Amino acid sequence: MSRVDTGSRGRMIEATIGLMRSSGLSGAGINDIVRESGAPKGSVYHFFPNGKVQIVSEALESYSERVLTFVDQALASKRDPADKIKALFSAFARRVAEGDFQKSCPFGAVSLDLERELEELRVVLETAFSDLKTRIAKHFHFGNPRRAQSFAGLVLTTIEGAYIRCRAERSARPFTEAGAWLAELAARDS
Amino acid sequence: MSRVDTGSRGRMIEATIGLMRSSGLSGAGINDIVRESGAPKGSVYHFFPNGKVQIVSEALESYSERVLTFVDQALASKRDPADKIKALFSAFARRVAEGDFQKSCPFGAVSLDLERELEELRVVLETAFSDLKTRIAKHFHFGNPRRAQSFAGLVLTTIEGAYIRCRAERSARPFTEAGAWLAELAARDS
Repeated sequence: MSRVDTGSRGRMIEATIGLMRSSGLSGAGINDIVRESGAPKGSVYHFFPNGKVQIVSEALESYSERVLTFVDQALASKRDPADKIKALFSAFARRVAEGDFQKSCPFGAVSLDLERELEELRVVLETAFSDLKTRIAKHFHFGNPRRAQSFAGLVLTTIEGAYIRCRAERSARPFTEAGAWLAELAARDS
Repeated sequence: MSRVDTGSRGRMIEATIGLMRSSGLSGAGINDIVRESGAPKGSVYHFFPNGKVQIVSEALESYSERVLTFVDQALASKRDPADKIKALFSAFARRVAEGDFQKSCPFGAVSLDLERELEELRVVLETAFSDLKTRIAKHFHFGNPRRAQSFAGLVLTTIEGAYIRCRAERSARPFTEAGAWLAELAARDS
């Protein structure tokens, strides 16, 4: 595979992530991906023989790696459980403001567009959420791993919901507000 | 306006709500609305001269009335603050399971599909969220109205996020899990 080809493939994945963050599955059509990536149209099926489901799956998996690192770094930046939560939600508040409240998490946008025949994508999302939950849970204890996992689930739920409100309200406050409340719960984890 | 016409209008609103709950703004195209409602295609612009943005706005406003009542009834069903929260999240858990994890909140689905030119719809969503927050806040005290509003904001954020996870995980657990944690916070409101 030539260097140019590799670049096209990566650009198509990046374009797909960006489009899904703006308007979900419906925004990431093959033509949109080609236009945004600048890749030649013919190369889509060369790199992604299974078409849209394949490119979207790979884009979600690629985003998953990125957000795991993002979450890990924010949570690791503080030692105190309540401070960890505040750091995480502040990081997301900055992230949504940087995207001018136009970009959210592709997992959320794709999940709410899912149709029954897209079982393959649903499984990708389920795995991404499970990985995120496990990664978040590692930073907490709550006396037992099950309760830490449950708290991590609440954190994940809240992040996804905050993105929705931030876009509708053009404000990062849903993240900081949620961070303050969840920090109260995290304060018990000591 | 004849009875048949009134029925068509209502059916178009219902069809739009159903389509948005399944797949957001992109799923609620004029052709989809016509097909699902069984209304004659010519009647769309008769009832909704401004087309899709108008029908979607009215459908969101109609859904807003409905969800306000739903939330009110669940919260009013218990007296203890923690029990109110558990009742609310159990009601949503039942609701998402009844829709076979294929239907979520149209506010969330539309929010994550918003594009810059859809400012009119964004304002409809912002108003719907503000109304919901105010309605939820009425059921709590937390010493002062601002803190009750903030808690109501967290409840709203969590509901929206739970729908995302429920669809991806085909499970109602994100609702019951969130309800249990938020009940711990609500228990302080006494």
